[in-house]
Amino acid sequence: MGLEERIRQTVEQYLATFSAGDREGWLDLFSGVATVEDPVGSPVRSGRQAIGEFWDGSHQLAEKIVLALVQGPAVVGNEAAFAMEARALAGGATMVIPTIDVMRFDDDGRIVSQRAFWDASSVRTES
Amino acid sequence: MGLEERIRQTVEQYLATFSAGDREGWLDLFSGVATVEDPVGSPVRSGRQAIGEFWDGSHQLAEKIVLALVQGPAVVGNEAAFAMEARALAGGATMVIPTIDVMRFDDDGRIVSQRAFWDASSVRTES
Repeated sequence: MGLEERIRQTVEQYLATFSAGDREGWLDLFSGVATVEDPVGSPVRSGRQAIGEFWDGSHQLAEKIVLALVQGPAVVGNEAAFAMEARALAGGATMVIPTIDVMRFDDDGRIVSQRAFWDASSVRTES
Repeated sequence: MGLEERIRQTVEQYLATFSAGDREGWLDLFSGVATVEDPVGSPVRSGRQAIGEFWDGSHQLAEKIVLALVQGPAVVGNEAAFAMEARALAGGATMVIPTIDVMRFDDDGRIVSQRAFWDASSVRTES
């Protein structure tokens, strides 16, 4: 499998494991030295433990979070970007967070860095 | 006007001037030391003359190119990202290029760097 195909598989699994609540499967997609900046501008989290804490923090806010792909991924070299909506279900309502993810990968297709662009003004609620 | 609003205005004008074929209006949105990497992985173009040559090269391939916003922009600090489709009209057909743009801005809201994520495998043709 070439690098582009490995990256596409990682992105697909990134969305699927996150949406399924599969914490360890999702963490396995990152390299050991990976960084997560989500949202862009917040402190960068580095390594499996810190990224796991990011997962835990996100999932404290919602009963379930589903990531729905909107466009992409565009894959170029060791990088990829895609548009998606994070749909967080809490208390009978859904908070929809339009997000652009930009990722860099190692040669095995594991995520080395993730930067998630989203801002509060774009968040909407669906009942 | 705050920085976020200036950035939103620049992105709006970026799409509008490009779609209108307004070369100089589009170039005016960049700072003097700006860089363009479009697509990501290609040589970085730096400064107004080189970015103008990028415009000219793009427009040699098509009679008209319309940029249609799909999602965003998400604006965070001095950065923004958005999903769009570049729709290039040539010879009665439209080539649709799904693209994720990632930009950095100076404090006046002018573009300091642009990186466009798109790959050939996602391009489709509409007749």
